[in-house]
Amino acid sequence: MPELRKDPITGRWIIIATERAKRPTDFITEDQPVKASFCPFCEGNEDKTPPEIIAYREKGSAANTPGWRVRVVPNKFPALKIEGNLNKRGEGIYDKMNGIGAHEVIIETPHHDISLTALEDTHVQEVLWAYRDRLIDLKKDTRFVYGMLFKNVGVAAGASLEHTHSQLIVTPTVPKAVLEEMRGSEAFYNYRGRCIFCDMIEQEVESEDRLVFNLSNFIAFEPFAARFPFETWILPKRHNSNFENLQKLGIEELATIIKGVLMKLEKALDYPPYNFVIHTGPFDRSDLSYYHWHIEVIPRLTKVAGFEWGTDFYINPVPPENAAQFLREIKLDEAPPRNVGTPEEKKP
Amino acid sequence: MPELRKDPITGRWIIIATERAKRPTDFITEDQPVKASFCPFCEGNEDKTPPEIIAYREKGSAANTPGWRVRVVPNKFPALKIEGNLNKRGEGIYDKMNGIGAHEVIIETPHHDISLTALEDTHVQEVLWAYRDRLIDLKKDTRFVYGMLFKNVGVAAGASLEHTHSQLIVTPTVPKAVLEEMRGSEAFYNYRGRCIFCDMIEQEVESEDRLVFNLSNFIAFEPFAARFPFETWILPKRHNSNFENLQKLGIEELATIIKGVLMKLEKALDYPPYNFVIHTGPFDRSDLSYYHWHIEVIPRLTKVAGFEWGTDFYINPVPPENAAQFLREIKLDEAPPRNVGTPEEKKP
Repeated sequence: MPELRKDPITGRWIIIATERAKRPTDFITEDQPVKASFCPFCEGNEDKTPPEIIAYREKGSAANTPGWRVRVVPNKFPALKIEGNLNKRGEGIYDKMNGIGAHEVIIETPHHDISLTALEDTHVQEVLWAYRDRLIDLKKDTRFVYGMLFKNVGVAAGASLEHTHSQLIVTPTVPKAVLEEMRGSEAFYNYRGRCIFCDMIEQEVESEDRLVFNLSNFIAFEPFAARFPFETWILPKRHNSNFENLQKLGIEELATIIKGVLMKLEKALDYPPYNFVIHTGPFDRSDLSYYHWHIEVIPRLTKVAGFEWGTDFYINPVPPENAAQFLREIKLDEAPPRNVGTPEEKKP
Repeated sequence: MPELRKDPITGRWIIIATERAKRPTDFITEDQPVKASFCPFCEGNEDKTPPEIIAYREKGSAANTPGWRVRVVPNKFPALKIEGNLNKRGEGIYDKMNGIGAHEVIIETPHHDISLTALEDTHVQEVLWAYRDRLIDLKKDTRFVYGMLFKNVGVAAGASLEHTHSQLIVTPTVPKAVLEEMRGSEAFYNYRGRCIFCDMIEQEVESEDRLVFNLSNFIAFEPFAARFPFETWILPKRHNSNFENLQKLGIEELATIIKGVLMKLEKALDYPPYNFVIHTGPFDRSDLSYYHWHIEVIPRLTKVAGFEWGTDFYINPVPPENAAQFLREIKLDEAPPRNVGTPEEKKP
């Protein structure tokens, strides 16, 4: 059973994988990119993953056989175990509990050599529906309080399999990074009576300096205090604390803007490794007035070194205004609609 | 002038390098390790660095010429500028200030092909004296509030030059990672009336499960909630909030334990890339009852992916107890004194 342990100083929880514990020699050759000859995520290999949880598939096709478009399966090597109880307990001054949670894989297409950006818009929408369906289902389990959706692309971004996929990890504690955002935005709300994310959206739309896309319901921009070059955030314009509250029209436009942002980053940076993460409200709330769900896209271009680990102070060699301008100027062959912010459309 | 910007949600400060701003194409080949044919840190090349700030050198040798053992110079490409004022100001809802601070390089030896662990103990002591001297000097500048000492070894750990060196970045704000530790340990102090680090030391010495070294005045152990495999902390046993309070006997034993920890990691993990960072109290205090300076050594063995960025929740595949046992069992040719915790010496 993996173990969840709390750092007594900062309150950060970490997962200790007690079962698949590695030996030091396991790390020595880890840096080689693995070009697998066999892919368990490809159509036809459905029996090589744990049985599917849900799949969107052709009418009449049977579970765990070909015929699917998007398929969700438990991670074969889960960071947390779905069965058992938390058994919260102490060890002297330390706190720990059993590593209970969910770890699922969203396989975004049956085809191996396709990136998320090469999928049809309607297909990307189905990936987003799968995210939403799984969050809504896992919320019902009272042992769990948070669901983190994320995607790793490229070896340098931590992807161990090439075939395009996302992951969902559901935890029995709210992750520290989200708690910090909640605390900060709650303090702002208590002081100003407004959502800080809504204020950011208003300022970014007005100044346009850091704007990448401004659609009817979504905005993409480079954050003012971006930690990383070309870090890009996607936010719904209308206040909403939880991703799973998304409705059909929202899903449609979200697919368009995600594809647009990723296509621009791929073109600008020659298909960089990247991560994206969805920050949403915790499971026990779905209507926080101070929190606003959003996506953070982080191309992995710079190395994180001692200074960053030691301080959480990042050195970003690309001003977000420069990155935004560069991304705005990139023409997509298949331009997302209402792409404001390209120079000729910019306000004088 | 670089710019310091504050994330309005989390309070994290970041540095935007506005002057040496990179273009997207600069990143495309960044992953190649650079084997420089010319090293500005080598003896004889003193004129290729900015003029030295301090150097410990042979009697009679002139500044910026050979004859030094440890040499401190300004970073030629500093993240922050030493001259100017902070000019704190707003930009709508955002806060920023000029990127004022110090960025210095501690060149640990005149010889290129030597690692810190291959230096004599007395030489490592001089490196630590240089750390202390620079902190004490820079504390006098009232614009600055914090000094972060760190060391990057290996390309994967962010080192851009091979020649062994450390860095000091002095900032006009307390870094978020340290503020979090201070807040957490202050809350513990207010509740229990004790330093949480002192409590940890007591528990680690007693249990021995995570212990690596237990010397007279210093302890090295794998933290209970280690984020990374073989993450190792070094702490002074006697309560002390600030590194620069170290005295001669402390420096001597600290050199021994740092060398011992690094030698064990090098042997266990075949010379892994690593970072170490010194967490110390801020400049305006030197006697905090709740904070305890320490060193965090982080071998860079695993990739940080979307889940970790999104949550600050780490998955550690090596239980710290296993890592500690492995490190204890490693025999050093030149064993540091009083290395308890090797199996035969362990309490029954």
